[in-house]
Amino acid sequence: MKAHLEKTEAGGDVAALMRDMGRRARAAARALALAAPAKKTAALKAAAAAIRQSASAILQANAEDISAARADQATPAFLDRLSLDDNSVAAIAEGVATVAALADPVGEVTASWRRPNGLRIERVRTPLGVIAVIYESRPNVTADAGALALKAGNAVILRGGSESFRSSRAIHQAMVRGLESEGLPADAIQLVPTRDRAAVGELLSGLGGMIDVVVPRGGKELVGRVEAEARVPVFAHLEGICHVYVHAPADLAMAKEIVFNAKMRRTGVCGAAETLLVDRALIATHLKPLVEMLIAAGCEIRGDEATRAADKRVMPASEQDWTTEYLDAILSVKVVDGLEAAIDHIERYGSHHTDSIVTQDKTAAEKFLQEVDSAIVLHNASTQFADGGEFGFGGEIGIATGRLHARGPVGAEQLTSFKYRVHGSGQTRP
Amino acid sequence: MKAHLEKTEAGGDVAALMRDMGRRARAAARALALAAPAKKTAALKAAAAAIRQSASAILQANAEDISAARADQATPAFLDRLSLDDNSVAAIAEGVATVAALADPVGEVTASWRRPNGLRIERVRTPLGVIAVIYESRPNVTADAGALALKAGNAVILRGGSESFRSSRAIHQAMVRGLESEGLPADAIQLVPTRDRAAVGELLSGLGGMIDVVVPRGGKELVGRVEAEARVPVFAHLEGICHVYVHAPADLAMAKEIVFNAKMRRTGVCGAAETLLVDRALIATHLKPLVEMLIAAGCEIRGDEATRAADKRVMPASEQDWTTEYLDAILSVKVVDGLEAAIDHIERYGSHHTDSIVTQDKTAAEKFLQEVDSAIVLHNASTQFADGGEFGFGGEIGIATGRLHARGPVGAEQLTSFKYRVHGSGQTRP
Repeated sequence: MKAHLEKTEAGGDVAALMRDMGRRARAAARALALAAPAKKTAALKAAAAAIRQSASAILQANAEDISAARADQATPAFLDRLSLDDNSVAAIAEGVATVAALADPVGEVTASWRRPNGLRIERVRTPLGVIAVIYESRPNVTADAGALALKAGNAVILRGGSESFRSSRAIHQAMVRGLESEGLPADAIQLVPTRDRAAVGELLSGLGGMIDVVVPRGGKELVGRVEAEARVPVFAHLEGICHVYVHAPADLAMAKEIVFNAKMRRTGVCGAAETLLVDRALIATHLKPLVEMLIAAGCEIRGDEATRAADKRVMPASEQDWTTEYLDAILSVKVVDGLEAAIDHIERYGSHHTDSIVTQDKTAAEKFLQEVDSAIVLHNASTQFADGGEFGFGGEIGIATGRLHARGPVGAEQLTSFKYRVHGSGQTRP
Repeated sequence: MKAHLEKTEAGGDVAALMRDMGRRARAAARALALAAPAKKTAALKAAAAAIRQSASAILQANAEDISAARADQATPAFLDRLSLDDNSVAAIAEGVATVAALADPVGEVTASWRRPNGLRIERVRTPLGVIAVIYESRPNVTADAGALALKAGNAVILRGGSESFRSSRAIHQAMVRGLESEGLPADAIQLVPTRDRAAVGELLSGLGGMIDVVVPRGGKELVGRVEAEARVPVFAHLEGICHVYVHAPADLAMAKEIVFNAKMRRTGVCGAAETLLVDRALIATHLKPLVEMLIAAGCEIRGDEATRAADKRVMPASEQDWTTEYLDAILSVKVVDGLEAAIDHIERYGSHHTDSIVTQDKTAAEKFLQEVDSAIVLHNASTQFADGGEFGFGGEIGIATGRLHARGPVGAEQLTSFKYRVHGSGQTRP
């Protein structure tokens, strides 16, 4: 695969190409910032319709991507992420239609107050500007990211994975048809037209101030590179080392359901639990049934000594297991001495993504929710709710663990900035 | 001055020193994030009292700074920024007391909603973490920045200018007495104890992930260096090229008052107007009186041809004048062909800081407020209101023109992040 990825198209000056895309995105962003909400909604509806109408062209392009990837000996998991079918194309169109129906965040007055001198100050949402999205094999990101960025009045530059290049291009063409049907600039959603990897470096440089934020969507290697090299802000999470902590008193049936769902619903998502913490007081009652349930479902358990004593099939956990995002049917399990020890473990080994406490003790839950410094903290609910759709955001461009601007699921609202409008009647400052 | 600035203290390993400060700040930040609001308020009140009690020690330290700066041939303007007296020390203490009295932003629930599955989701303000503030000669920043950071539950590392080192140290000692009186960690407000300029580079590197945001306070050279070199987010503005646009129909008396105040109240602040735009329709009625008023007040006018035709004392403006932040009694003046031309000029030459329209036409004002893409846009009010105190924020750590997280005056609220608290009753994700 590597040789294919590194291959560059002939004859292109990537730096000049990318600078030009940046300039066109900035110009489109200015037009989009002033576009009427109804125009953006109509463009997104038209884009959803265009995706449905283009289903066969998209599937044809996807089939070409897949056969090229097969020839490159792509793994089954890779092919699975890359593959589209009638249902997934319909779901992509449906996702765009859902974003179309969202409330428009731009222009929303989020605060308003009057000063003693009579000045009326409003804080109002504005678009962020130009967003760059760098992703890997999943072609649906082309539509999801394009739609959310547009809803919030931003221009977006999409850089999909080389292996999904044809699929992304076909989806992108449908998105542009939606823009054009409403007279919005086609440059509002641009797809990098080369597979040359130098394009990523150019985007990370910010294209001479033309990029306001970069969103990487993909594996740890991609996100790590983006976070290390980007000269512009990044909305991302490097990994999701999510914990479920079962605190006494916890209802065993609820604990089993939440732990099972948090680990096993989908093991490859960032909100999947990677470590289970169980109170020492629950060794006799909860630990064994939880471990047995997971092993019966095909989950490998790596535990500390107390966990291994509960079930002989538990493998020993090393120090490294507490900081490992398995993204697989593997769970590390540790017995802790109460709430403080659980919080300490999460703060020490976690990734500040999503962590849950299962307990009937409201005071303990409040303390956990306050003290665990993660983007999402839950009480009596599965960590797999870490998702923009589940939060009611109508979609997400990703989940962020940074502390500035966007944190948790990044939806349309998080893709906005703000400004202050001040209404006076001749006031001067003393 | 340069040689003095470059001078390093003997024997210190600055990198190791700064890493240690970063680690201590992070530990203090965790304690501070959980501190009760009343404790932070009491600590700030005690710090204000300690500053008042330490007035003579602060003034003594300041006198030493001033005599060293004089020996280094500092300019009068520089000495003015550096100098403290009884009144300014009292004002510094009063500023800390004002911040003490502000509402505590941490823990505020800024949004709350329930999902169809019964999950209750809250978005709640949390501290940002560790803030680095890099400033120049004004010793009061030590107290202002320390107080605002503390109010929002953050730890702060302060790096004052070498010339104000003794003054800042004396003020810092008083701030620490306030922290200690309430049992809060002294490391919550740290002052870099060396004048070695390498300390700035270390802060800009982020100290291995220990710094969440850098705030530079000072001239364009400092801010430019920070923006170019920082590997962490920056809250700052490089320059304030602020405009007043007088649109027909505008009340002449109001226009005169606003233009005079915007330019002449204080010429050295970032919210001072640097360019006046006047509608062509107002040449006969408004242009000449405005220009005459300013020249009479000692302001140099650099104008386009139409402005020069109105008054022979107007100097010719070059292309460069439209992008120059004079910070002095100089104003560039241009006649424009209406609202669109004014907005175009501001978008092309401005710095997205603060811009004002003077008009009796509400529709024109609304269009200006919507389309000018600046942190602060005003109607019928002076640009010099660009200030956290004037906004009712009780102070500011600076004014930001970036589009992410903080924009406009950066007060205690803008020094917070947020997280999502999710309250469930056993929900799992389908």
